[in-house]
Amino acid sequence: MNETFLKACRGEQTDYTPVWLMRQAGRYLPEYHTVRSKYTFLEMCKTPAAAAEVTIQPVDILGVDAAILFSDILVPLEKMGAPLEFHEKRGPVFPQPVRDRAAVAKLVVPDPELELPYVLDTIRLLRRELANKVPLIGFSGAPFTLATYLIEGGSSRQFLLTKQMMYTEPELYAALLDKITACTTLYLKAQVAAGAQALQIFDSWVGVLSPYDFSKFALPYVQRIIRELKEGGVTVPIIYFANNGATLLPQSLTSGADVLGLDWRIDMAEAVKVVGPKVALQGNLDPCALLLPPAKMEERISAILAGAKGARGHIFNLGHGILPEIPPAQAKFMVEAVHRLSRRG
Amino acid sequence: MNETFLKACRGEQTDYTPVWLMRQAGRYLPEYHTVRSKYTFLEMCKTPAAAAEVTIQPVDILGVDAAILFSDILVPLEKMGAPLEFHEKRGPVFPQPVRDRAAVAKLVVPDPELELPYVLDTIRLLRRELANKVPLIGFSGAPFTLATYLIEGGSSRQFLLTKQMMYTEPELYAALLDKITACTTLYLKAQVAAGAQALQIFDSWVGVLSPYDFSKFALPYVQRIIRELKEGGVTVPIIYFANNGATLLPQSLTSGADVLGLDWRIDMAEAVKVVGPKVALQGNLDPCALLLPPAKMEERISAILAGAKGARGHIFNLGHGILPEIPPAQAKFMVEAVHRLSRRG
Repeated sequence: MNETFLKACRGEQTDYTPVWLMRQAGRYLPEYHTVRSKYTFLEMCKTPAAAAEVTIQPVDILGVDAAILFSDILVPLEKMGAPLEFHEKRGPVFPQPVRDRAAVAKLVVPDPELELPYVLDTIRLLRRELANKVPLIGFSGAPFTLATYLIEGGSSRQFLLTKQMMYTEPELYAALLDKITACTTLYLKAQVAAGAQALQIFDSWVGVLSPYDFSKFALPYVQRIIRELKEGGVTVPIIYFANNGATLLPQSLTSGADVLGLDWRIDMAEAVKVVGPKVALQGNLDPCALLLPPAKMEERISAILAGAKGARGHIFNLGHGILPEIPPAQAKFMVEAVHRLSRRG
Repeated sequence: MNETFLKACRGEQTDYTPVWLMRQAGRYLPEYHTVRSKYTFLEMCKTPAAAAEVTIQPVDILGVDAAILFSDILVPLEKMGAPLEFHEKRGPVFPQPVRDRAAVAKLVVPDPELELPYVLDTIRLLRRELANKVPLIGFSGAPFTLATYLIEGGSSRQFLLTKQMMYTEPELYAALLDKITACTTLYLKAQVAAGAQALQIFDSWVGVLSPYDFSKFALPYVQRIIRELKEGGVTVPIIYFANNGATLLPQSLTSGADVLGLDWRIDMAEAVKVVGPKVALQGNLDPCALLLPPAKMEERISAILAGAKGARGHIFNLGHGILPEIPPAQAKFMVEAVHRLSRRG
């Protein structure tokens, strides 16, 4: 197997810097649209053959060093008892938002093998189909980010209702987060049992929190998940991605994660200075930089590779998901350039 | 006159920490709605009596230490030749986006006294009506932020078209930014001539840039404006607010501004460490923290005041504009608490 990604996560020496792209199984690929046209988005998440097919596409097309399960962070919330809809324009919608004691009490902690078999079946199918070509990353949302969707009833800009609950009903907020944390822990454990060889926890919206609120209302739940996974015998590398989280980096270091994901707003060399030799880093090219002409894109890639020199390990990635507007040839060029520019010896 | 705000900007000792709120003349105030109901948003910006009335409201109602001109950062762009519309739901729209050489060539640099008299008349009216009660802040958008609206044709999430122009047509981008910079410099100069006693430059979207792109595509234009203002004899304090700009702070220090505005994502004490004794700081309570019960809100305010202790000067503010959902009594409590908790001697 191409072990480069796993080695870099563990801080071991590699021949070159491994690379994968957040949302690499996605709308920028015509091959993805071909599969997607046969299903709704949620149906595709629940159909192992389809989910596995799009998961493998970027491995073959781009030559990335890891596959990541095709799914959505909101999928387990549906099984907690919160009906979920995906609207073409508005994105995800929870028509029954969770905003009071009764709504929190009604939420359940699903058994993943019983309630989310399609996710685990997809992982099992992928491990067979990938045939150890590259490792498979499983994932979940982080509790804060998941809670925002339940509280706001979908996406948000200001997260006013979420912060209102934190600030004015901290016990209610904690009860909700406790349940989401329990669900997420079981869910990730089951993914590893099914064959996931690494895990990423996406905290997509945590960048709207001040460092103080992060320490009180978001980080403790991430710490709890990772602690329980590790105490439960999970040994696969765990990546924590706090999007727009430059000012949260010193605290993220205490999350227990083996790797911290970085968005593009922080200079890689600065990040290495902040985290020191304790964790590996993942990132962090601006997704829009995939529009650059090749020579200019190489300059940016080289700067990130140089900045990561002192890191315990480095996995190249974008600083956020790849955008639907990116030509696949540009993504392929990036993967090839990372491999070429980082090759050692 | 209550000189507290101006003194803090200049790094002089004050009896207490001055405070104002971004968007303090705004939709959270019922008194604002009373005036607003008689005009469209743009009409109100162009009607000195109305603009002055809502500018003064928060001075009387909240007891803030500075007034800020009621207007919109996009107002001068209309006079550059880009028709501007405000839609109730979508926000600002430029139906003729500026995306090619011909469109940039057509833009003009307006003479503010001839083309934007209503803004300058509002300032002159306000200076009379404020009768030196508190100082009046004038403002503009920063060139990068203004350019995003022209290029994207309105608000955006990814700013893909803006970055595409930067990355693939850097000369075109520079030509556009040069014109916006010239317009903004004249506009701010005219505001000071009309009576503005301080200036704030809002870089609302600059937080989507990596530090590298900031140094190349945004900061130089801010530096040029401030240099030309100061060389042109402008002596009023200049505040530069790079929203979501924690990682841009070391470079923002070279903007030439007397004060740097901070959003709430960075800890105030950390910011003081980064900027040292060179500039004063403004900020940075999470706008949502105005939902906190009084005792908890005081804790947050005290933490920010304590964090700012080593700063050259500190002007208390929110980390972003006040939200329409905030009860005015909560904003009033914040202003009173800042004054009380910071009083010296």
